[in-house]
Amino acid sequence: MCSLPVPREPLRRVAVAGGTHGNEMSGIYLVRHWLLTPAELQRPSFSAVPVLANPAATAACRRYVDRDLNRTFASTFLNSRPTPDDPYEVTRARELNQLLGPKASGQAFDFVLDLHNTTANMGTCLIADSSHDVFALHLCRHLQLQYPELSCQVLLYQRSGEESHNLNSVAKNGLGLELGPQPQGVLRADIFSRMSALVATVLDFIELFNQGTTFPAFEMEAYRPVGVMDFPRTEAGNLAGTVHPQLQDQDFQPLQPGDPIFQMFSGEDLLYEGESAVYPVFINEAAYYEKGVAFVQTEKLTFSVPAMPALTPAPSPAS
Amino acid sequence: MCSLPVPREPLRRVAVAGGTHGNEMSGIYLVRHWLLTPAELQRPSFSAVPVLANPAATAACRRYVDRDLNRTFASTFLNSRPTPDDPYEVTRARELNQLLGPKASGQAFDFVLDLHNTTANMGTCLIADSSHDVFALHLCRHLQLQYPELSCQVLLYQRSGEESHNLNSVAKNGLGLELGPQPQGVLRADIFSRMSALVATVLDFIELFNQGTTFPAFEMEAYRPVGVMDFPRTEAGNLAGTVHPQLQDQDFQPLQPGDPIFQMFSGEDLLYEGESAVYPVFINEAAYYEKGVAFVQTEKLTFSVPAMPALTPAPSPAS
Repeated sequence: MCSLPVPREPLRRVAVAGGTHGNEMSGIYLVRHWLLTPAELQRPSFSAVPVLANPAATAACRRYVDRDLNRTFASTFLNSRPTPDDPYEVTRARELNQLLGPKASGQAFDFVLDLHNTTANMGTCLIADSSHDVFALHLCRHLQLQYPELSCQVLLYQRSGEESHNLNSVAKNGLGLELGPQPQGVLRADIFSRMSALVATVLDFIELFNQGTTFPAFEMEAYRPVGVMDFPRTEAGNLAGTVHPQLQDQDFQPLQPGDPIFQMFSGEDLLYEGESAVYPVFINEAAYYEKGVAFVQTEKLTFSVPAMPALTPAPSPAS
Repeated sequence: MCSLPVPREPLRRVAVAGGTHGNEMSGIYLVRHWLLTPAELQRPSFSAVPVLANPAATAACRRYVDRDLNRTFASTFLNSRPTPDDPYEVTRARELNQLLGPKASGQAFDFVLDLHNTTANMGTCLIADSSHDVFALHLCRHLQLQYPELSCQVLLYQRSGEESHNLNSVAKNGLGLELGPQPQGVLRADIFSRMSALVATVLDFIELFNQGTTFPAFEMEAYRPVGVMDFPRTEAGNLAGTVHPQLQDQDFQPLQPGDPIFQMFSGEDLLYEGESAVYPVFINEAAYYEKGVAFVQTEKLTFSVPAMPALTPAPSPAS
């Protein structure tokens, strides 16, 4: 396995972003809270910066104004010449790239944590780029060990060979937190508290790393997208049915060939016709209707993550 | 008790409206389905008309475009002179008033059923105007008896002395169905099926009435709004906390003085300081943040609903 290099210096420039989607309320209100109480984001070796990523969409309580900001951090947008007709989110992505990047440069932030909610029953989902992302996977492992009751699932979202286009891709390291189910525009206290605790533990992990902690190798189980499934639709493009009650809320559970996936408005069931089990996630996510995605199909992987050595050489054991 | 007159003629002009709020998906997709399969809305004595009430908001998957349509059926809007600058929903309310009304006229539709969803845990909630609305309350009773497993709750939404400004107020009789919890922009199969069954039973009830069925008197339990509670807010108007986990999802359950209602972002609890129990509903409804409503406080009433006589004189018992 080809692993990405782990950081060789302490992570001092750290940001926590909320409101990348303007109707995902947990991160929005956490960022607003931290802007008033920045000490909560301080650790001995660094102070994380709270960032409200999409203020215009947040003010409108919509996912975005012109286009999905979290699909806009691609070099084609970041490096093109600005024009007065640019979509709001293209302009905002360039601003964030200046603030937290520039992407793929030595000046980029060391770590960006991006806070999301989903209407799907995803529980506590940790979104890393790939199985090569050793630092993020050690962080995921730390969160799993600290919160066994949350059954944190790891989703490896970057498709092989594709450029990352999400917010944390502008930084050297990053992770997404995806907590649900929570309706768009609603702030549930239970999810707010859970996200707040997870963020604190992410910062604690970075502090441990900065202080020279060694993290041993481990086996990790994670999910990787292999495709998407659209809703059944009429010729006019409207839904002809919706997610089957037996699939609704079953994120990360195996879907077997022959299992029902959609209930048509005519009453008929549509069955999954794949050749082997997949693990659906983002089942019936409100924001994905317009993207033609009723759920994302993933495969389940198990792989080894190598040890992450201490930043400074550990002292030799006393002889 | 002063009762409204019950209909003296069969109800032949009946409409079922969805999409009065353009992101409440159950009614929207039921209406789209019935536009293709109108026979489902036919009964021997009438055919109900499906109406997509706010097509522009539905296309945008937003509650409304310019203003809340379901607060726009007041005479001040319906009877004012149209201008090119009218908000979209004012124009649309006038169109619907022409289609289904005119409000308070003899030409108005006999019955309008309006289909809604809420992000709150309201279960199956039936919204009638008042305890004087004998026809609607018999219909509620019929639904309660047909679906004992749904624990249908009755909410009497019209404040005494206020003009009704909701869609069904343009018709001679009406009822609202409010089913939840469902996120905005999401179509859950379980709620879709439940709403579909309830609509069929509403039409069956109208058919029974039209055929000359007598409905006996009964005792009804219902909830009536007595006030609203806003979120705690900062000086800038942002939330300073959210609905307490002990109150979240507890719609229609008694809230006692001293019970926690909000969890502040500072960690502190805010307690309910009223003098007696209230029954909160619409707890943490997404659409009500902008209205300054964290929940609606109701009181629980029990009252008698008089018998509803048959339309045509019942035959005398054989002597």
